[in-house]
Amino acid sequence: MPDVVTMDKIVSLARRRGFVFPSSEIYGGLGSSYDYGHYGVLMKENVKTRWLEAMVRERDDIVALDSSIILHPSVWRASGHVAGFTDPLVDCRHCKLRFRADQLEEAQCGARPSKHPGETELCDLTEPRQFNLMFQTRIGALEETGLDAYLRPETAQGIFVNFKNVAQIARRKPPFGIAQLGKAFRNEITPGNFIFRTLEFEMMEMEYFVPPDSAEHWHRYWIDERLAWYRRFGIRESHLRVRAHESDELSHYSSATSDIEYLFPIGWSELEGIANRGDYDLTAHSEASGTRLEWVDSATGERYVPYVVEPAAGVNRSLLAFLVDSYDEEVVAERPRTVLRLHPEIAPVKAAILPLVPRDAEMSTRARNLYEELRRAMVAEYDDSGQIGRRYRRQDEIGTPFALTVDEQTVEDETVTIRDRDSLAQERIPIAGARSFVLDRLAQEWKTSKAD
Amino acid sequence: MPDVVTMDKIVSLARRRGFVFPSSEIYGGLGSSYDYGHYGVLMKENVKTRWLEAMVRERDDIVALDSSIILHPSVWRASGHVAGFTDPLVDCRHCKLRFRADQLEEAQCGARPSKHPGETELCDLTEPRQFNLMFQTRIGALEETGLDAYLRPETAQGIFVNFKNVAQIARRKPPFGIAQLGKAFRNEITPGNFIFRTLEFEMMEMEYFVPPDSAEHWHRYWIDERLAWYRRFGIRESHLRVRAHESDELSHYSSATSDIEYLFPIGWSELEGIANRGDYDLTAHSEASGTRLEWVDSATGERYVPYVVEPAAGVNRSLLAFLVDSYDEEVVAERPRTVLRLHPEIAPVKAAILPLVPRDAEMSTRARNLYEELRRAMVAEYDDSGQIGRRYRRQDEIGTPFALTVDEQTVEDETVTIRDRDSLAQERIPIAGARSFVLDRLAQEWKTSKAD
Repeated sequence: MPDVVTMDKIVSLARRRGFVFPSSEIYGGLGSSYDYGHYGVLMKENVKTRWLEAMVRERDDIVALDSSIILHPSVWRASGHVAGFTDPLVDCRHCKLRFRADQLEEAQCGARPSKHPGETELCDLTEPRQFNLMFQTRIGALEETGLDAYLRPETAQGIFVNFKNVAQIARRKPPFGIAQLGKAFRNEITPGNFIFRTLEFEMMEMEYFVPPDSAEHWHRYWIDERLAWYRRFGIRESHLRVRAHESDELSHYSSATSDIEYLFPIGWSELEGIANRGDYDLTAHSEASGTRLEWVDSATGERYVPYVVEPAAGVNRSLLAFLVDSYDEEVVAERPRTVLRLHPEIAPVKAAILPLVPRDAEMSTRARNLYEELRRAMVAEYDDSGQIGRRYRRQDEIGTPFALTVDEQTVEDETVTIRDRDSLAQERIPIAGARSFVLDRLAQEWKTSKAD
Repeated sequence: MPDVVTMDKIVSLARRRGFVFPSSEIYGGLGSSYDYGHYGVLMKENVKTRWLEAMVRERDDIVALDSSIILHPSVWRASGHVAGFTDPLVDCRHCKLRFRADQLEEAQCGARPSKHPGETELCDLTEPRQFNLMFQTRIGALEETGLDAYLRPETAQGIFVNFKNVAQIARRKPPFGIAQLGKAFRNEITPGNFIFRTLEFEMMEMEYFVPPDSAEHWHRYWIDERLAWYRRFGIRESHLRVRAHESDELSHYSSATSDIEYLFPIGWSELEGIANRGDYDLTAHSEASGTRLEWVDSATGERYVPYVVEPAAGVNRSLLAFLVDSYDEEVVAERPRTVLRLHPEIAPVKAAILPLVPRDAEMSTRARNLYEELRRAMVAEYDDSGQIGRRYRRQDEIGTPFALTVDEQTVEDETVTIRDRDSLAQERIPIAGARSFVLDRLAQEWKTSKAD
């Protein structure tokens, strides 16, 4: 397998198998917007569920929240996003295209294409101006009297403004966290690289409120925890690294940020950011709202503004990393195959049930019965369309760990073959024990078959 | 119990126990916007998971999709939403408030309050004007050159524009469906009634594509299916009814719609709409995009535009119905209690583990161990804060079906008491068998304890 698969191959497989489609395609698409098909939805659900389990269900110190996408506009003034969440943009006077002033090495005038391939002709550029990345809208039916509002560019602020409500009701004291899954929107001028950066995306953010003097400890703790999470679900250690932000690249709210980077086809890029936001947000909202967002110990009377450590991951970017990391091509018995070596907990379908000869009533009845039994315990798929080899290829390409084939022998002795996606080993097992066989294998610790 | 509980009691419990908070509360709130706390998130997840199971996992004929909130603006022109998704609004010249022209019986001038209680003083109103209910925004960083876009007011259109991609890849022929969960936004001038109608809400929509001559059959089929779903999860039959729309209240795309109505505290109101959209949408998008959205039988060459039957439900509105329907107050042994008699599959927490005397090391160790065992199989909660009676009250109010208490006797004979939320019966069972006891009870068919 190549060290890193190309993005084209991922885009092609994602589209061919219905993981991800370009959005609004029949209308010519909408820049970098994507819709998720059946397997994309199932896989995204797996990513989110695994995150929620690790963050909330397996812990006692974190509760869940789901705040609105459209919050009161004062939230974004207090948070610094109205003033500071901007990109410097320049316009080309010739072609009217717009570029980021800090990414001019990639800029090329659309009206004056280079005569020599590989040679970049620079634009005639305006001075840079700051443009806010928040999508704006208005609440209230009339333009004149409506209330300006923003689509949230991060889910975190919905957590901060609910801090007091949640801390009171959850009866938690620092360190404790609030976790949130949800969409966010950024009006980026340079989205791209498939689902790596899109205008609309899903975030998995957790704000962990801690005593100020322990913030550094928890910052390191969460970097380690989140790294372990990616490894636990099969991402290769050699394709993960941690990079601390230089002081000049820190967000306006952050006193320290480390990115977990993944070796995407576009190179090492941010997979998740873990920031020490200090008391920036709670203090800002306390001042702007007049509500003291602090922790008060009812026993001792001690009070302080907790510091916040934030692991912030993208669902779509995680999905991309899982696809890239598991993509493999190999030649088996002189036939090429593409396979997603996904961790079974991330794979959209756990088992496929294939009647060898679909129009054979005895086979298809047994296959249907087995399917009905399996689907009650896991996401299973009944596939009776096309040659068996083609069906195996389809299941390999969506990363189904197990394929169970019902054939002539099944009708005679009530056994089926079970095929392992990674090793391609086939075993015959009694059909009556197939369900527990698969469940046992799924519950075993997963050994990756990926080349390092 | 009162026939229908008041909305105030639901709002109060939802807030007190952290199901639902007013959004942006520290900034004075944002009209009818709400954020969901820990139990609200868990309960919402249950509603969505049960819907997805019934729609996708338990069936072979429906696949999942997750399309973007911001689609190409041409989608909304073709769908008729830019021209037709409007409310007639009037302004009061005195107080500058805005009202829906079709709801003037509720209008009252804010500047001239009635002198006599109960007497409504009418406004001095402008002529009605049509206002579009879609939130508008712009893509692209500069106002002058950006692309006008809309936040989707329904998820359905994302399904229609992906029809061809999905049908091809899913290898399905009509009747087959595409199901989608996601947020939608409507710039309503009169949101309200708690989470019944909000600017931002989550939908559960399924578009079922059928041969035109079977559309009426499938319309009735889906009304029955969806009614059965609400009953299956404990909604009282006597609080559900079906009401067919009159021809003058049909949406612009619908040839027939029936609402499943629920007896909310505000009276019988729409819980879910099941529409026969005919070939309106696929035909509109075929004409506008130049892509033929039709079904072609590759064997016979037969081709037609499928009709669409759409069950469209709201997550938030369902949540409200589950809360209202399960809310009960009673006096037990001269002490009043409030209890949510939720179906266990909808209840946010399945079991609470309570050490009677938390500072007793022997009790708390056993309780922790039991908790660790249960939480691996279900959402469980460890609660050691406050008197035992208070803890029972808390669990009753969030609808936890089972409370397991570890007491002095547990330390002697390794048994615990298990308390049934509805009957209040307490049994002693061996702690070693507690996990399977609870799992067995959760798996049993649920018998509602609600008064009819």
